[in-house]
Order: sequence, then C-alpha cells, then structure tokens
Amino acid sequence: MVSKPRHFQRMLAIGVGLIGGSICLSAKQRGLVGHVLGYSRRLETAHEALRLGLIDECVVGPGDSNLRTVEAVVLSIPVQQYKPVLTQFLPVLPANCVFFDAGSTKADVVDVLNELEHAFPGLKARFVPAHPIAGGESHGPHAAVAGLFENRNCVLTPMEQTHTAHVHKVESFWQALGARVSFMAALDHDEMFGTVSHLPHFLAFAYVASVLNHPKGAQFMKEGGAGYRDFTRIAASSPEMWADIFQNNSKALLDALSAFEATSARLRNAIENDDRSTLERVLSEAAAYRSQWTQK
Amino acid sequence: MVSKPRHFQRMLAIGVGLIGGSICLSAKQRGLVGHVLGYSRRLETAHEALRLGLIDECVVGPGDSNLRTVEAVVLSIPVQQYKPVLTQFLPVLPANCVFFDAGSTKADVVDVLNELEHAFPGLKARFVPAHPIAGGESHGPHAAVAGLFENRNCVLTPMEQTHTAHVHKVESFWQALGARVSFMAALDHDEMFGTVSHLPHFLAFAYVASVLNHPKGAQFMKEGGAGYRDFTRIAASSPEMWADIFQNNSKALLDALSAFEATSARLRNAIENDDRSTLERVLSEAAAYRSQWTQK
Repeated sequence: MVSKPRHFQRMLAIGVGLIGGSICLSAKQRGLVGHVLGYSRRLETAHEALRLGLIDECVVGPGDSNLRTVEAVVLSIPVQQYKPVLTQFLPVLPANCVFFDAGSTKADVVDVLNELEHAFPGLKARFVPAHPIAGGESHGPHAAVAGLFENRNCVLTPMEQTHTAHVHKVESFWQALGARVSFMAALDHDEMFGTVSHLPHFLAFAYVASVLNHPKGAQFMKEGGAGYRDFTRIAASSPEMWADIFQNNSKALLDALSAFEATSARLRNAIENDDRSTLERVLSEAAAYRSQWTQK
Repeated sequence: MVSKPRHFQRMLAIGVGLIGGSICLSAKQRGLVGHVLGYSRRLETAHEALRLGLIDECVVGPGDSNLRTVEAVVLSIPVQQYKPVLTQFLPVLPANCVFFDAGSTKADVVDVLNELEHAFPGLKARFVPAHPIAGGESHGPHAAVAGLFENRNCVLTPMEQTHTAHVHKVESFWQALGARVSFMAALDHDEMFGTVSHLPHFLAFAYVASVLNHPKGAQFMKEGGAGYRDFTRIAASSPEMWADIFQNNSKALLDALSAFEATSARLRNAIENDDRSTLERVLSEAAAYRSQWTQK
C-alpha cells in the first residue's frame, strides 16, 4: 500500500479556536499533515487544543526552536492581530514556508501584507489569503470539529505577487479538507460578503440590541417563535470577532447598509401611505427570490 | 370504554390553508370535532382540503342549509376579509355558535367586531380572538399538518364583553390541540408581536429586496452561507399575508422599526468613528441575551 504524500510535514496553526482547531483536526484526521504545532496568545487555549487532540505540540512563542522547519502557517486569528503576530514570527520561520489565513475580510489582509512587505520582502509571494465560509455562534477549541469544511466554499484571493506554486499548494490543501475552492479579487470578496454575511450580522445584532432597549423587550423576546429564532441566531455570534469584521470591512458594509436603509424607508412609506401595490410588489420580489434560493 | 365528549359536534372552518387546514386535521385526528365543514373564497381550495381529508364537507356559500346547526366557527383568513365574510355568514349561523380566529394581529379584529356589533348584537360576547404562534413559509391546504400546534403558544385576547363560558370552550379546544394557552390584551399582543415577529419579517423582506436592487445582488446571494440562510428564511413567507399584517399592525410595527433605526444608526456611527467600545458593548449585550435565549 502506497500512502499519499502529506501536504505539509510540519504546519504551524496560529489561533486554535473553532476555525483554526477545525483546520488542524481535519488535516490530521485526513493525513494531510505530519506534525501540527499550535500557538495562541493565551497559552491555556493552546493547552486545551493539545488536550483535545487538535494539535501535536504547543508553541510558547517565536523563541521556540521547533519553528525552524515549519512548512506552512495558517492564521485563524482576528485580522487586527496579523501585523504584530507576523512581525514576531516571521524572523524565525523558514524563508520558503507558505502562509494562508481564514479571515472573513480580505482587503485588510492585503493592506497588512503591503505594510509588512518592506520589512519582509517576498512575503506577498508566499501568502495566499483565504476565507472558508464556515463557522457559527460557538467558538474556542472545544467547538472544533473535523468535518467543518466539507462541502463548504472557500474563497482564495491571491495577489498579483503571490506565486502560482503556493496558490496551488493552498488550493489543494483546502480541497483535501473537503472544501470547494473559488477565486476572487479581495475587493470583490469584501463587497460580496459585506452584503450577504456582514450586513445580516449587523442587522441581527442591531435588532436584538434595539429590542433589549425597550422596557419590556426581554419579556417580548421570550415569546419569539421559529421566525424570531432563526432571524436572530447570528446575533449570538462572537462580539469581538464581529466588531473586528465590521471595522475591517466598514466601507462595503456601510454601503450595503445604505441600500438596505433606502429599501426599508420605501417599505415604511408604503405602509404609512397605505400603498398596498408597492408593499406587495417589494415583498413579492423578495419572497420569489428567497423561495427558490438553495444553499450551495 | 367511555369516549371523551367532543368539543364541537359541527365546526365550520372559514379558510382551509396551512393554519385552518391544520386546525381541522388536528381536531379530527384527536376526536375533538364530529363533522367539519370547510369554506374558502376559492371553491377549488375547499375541494383540495376535502380531498386531503382536512374537512368532511365543502360549503359553497351562506346559502347552504348545513350551516344552521354549526356550533363553532374558526376564521383562518386575512383579517381584511373578516368583515365581508362575517357579514355574509352571520345571518344564517345559529345565534349560540362560538367564534374564534387565528389572525396574527388582534386590535384590528376588535375593530371589525366593534363595527359588526351594531348589525349583529351579541357578536362580541361569543367571539374569542386567538393567535396560535405557528406557521411557516409554506401555505395552502397541502401544507396542513396534524401536529402544528403541539407545544406551541396560543394567545387569546378576549374582550370585556366576551362571555367566560365561550372563552373556556375555546381555551380548552386549543389545549386539546396541544397548544399552551396564554391571555393578553389585544393592544399588548400587537405591541409584543409587532416587535418579535412582524419587525423581523419586515427587516428580512427589506434586506432581500435591497440586495436584489444591487446589479450583482442575486449573484452575491448565491454565495450565502448558513447565517444568510437562517436570517432570510422568513423573507420567503407569503407576501399577501405579510402585507396584511404590516398594514393591520402598522402602529406597533413602525414604532419598533423606529427603535431599530435608532440602534442601527448608533452602530453605524460607532463604526464610522472607530468607536470600538460602543460597538463592542452593543454587540455584547445582544450576543449575551441571544446566547441564553431558548425557545419556549
């Protein structure tokens, strides 16, 4: 029996929560990696990932000698932390290792790489920005699962400078995790996800927060049915992560919000003026689209 | 073996779609009713309900002689149709039969009853407004299911004039269908559901409609993940029914919308001004509430 070659002999996971932990666990279970090192700002988190079998070894910091032979680094941390973390680790990592990430925004990642390129020339050549469309309200290493990326989309947004060989390595790694890989420019990615992911999260958070402001709001929400349950599910997501995303993708998000506000105002006017035909036309367009929508 | 007494020997269902059809089917399967007559504006709909076994007999119109011995009438039609339909049927229905409904708004039902009370004195004494919290995106007789009200809430909003005996009859009927019955004033009901049901529907419809206005909006939504899926599920609901609800409960809905707009504007400001602490505080309040919320 000939065993398949591993994608990476030694992989370093920076961030070992739901996403990072699931990448490690899935890659280990599928035999894509030989040895997985894990780093977290909070050492206890790395220890928990080790206990749960997500990683094989904890990294305490850039001083660790075991980093010198790492072949791939995956970042699953807030984009705000990319610059300080990369600045710390880049000097000790081998010059040929490939980087990818799992951040929900991509133009801001390119900005960070542009800033770091001066101090670390060639970084953009071996960094393949990625966004797996997976996640949920739960977070932390205990939420990690092996099948998280199976049949899920993963968008890669390589830069002009990114070497094709590295793009292929990262593409085949995600495919081996079960993901369907597609390619997009960073700005197009951010406009799309600002519209179909970030805005729904913004609206769900704003909705629950606004009802909580009502003196009887919490009592009202106790009576919520299945519609309320599903509409607000994403408002239970990590506030820190979503504050990051809202700030990092503010332009695309706020443009989409302005479009939403215009439509909301039109519907409000239609209700206030008993304009049944506009009201029914707008609702019908939405219902017709959403009724035939199916998840890819 | 002693069989339990039926709640109603003969029941007339006006409206035999998802809600009306499910009430009939559930009541028949549980032996709560002897014989169920069904009426729909469209005769084919009543025929379909008959074929599906939801009802035992179709009513063509108020001329039918079989209406004279009806004990209970349940209205599961848009509230806009209550007045013309009741005006048609009340003259031929027995003076002691009890009425209830399944409308999502309640103050407007009271308004209709106030208008009809002059022509049909005593109507308010035997009408028990009800709102079962059940439903979904599907509609029509084929969507009816026997267990729809099991463990679901049903709010009754009897008026001052409603006779206690009739309230008890309708209360025990809903309980026998498996529902948990609670009582509320009509205006309180409308404020609560304007906030936890009608506003989420408004926002979901407005969101999908606004994205469809974007030149690439439909393409964007194809990429929607689980968050998008659940957030927009209710935008596939019946446009006619929700246009009715938005118009019938416009005051409570638009008040809740104004509160939402204020919170949304606060979040937008926080993003525009890089006010991380406000942003994270508002998101955290929402996430903390929603994480511990469980459906009743």
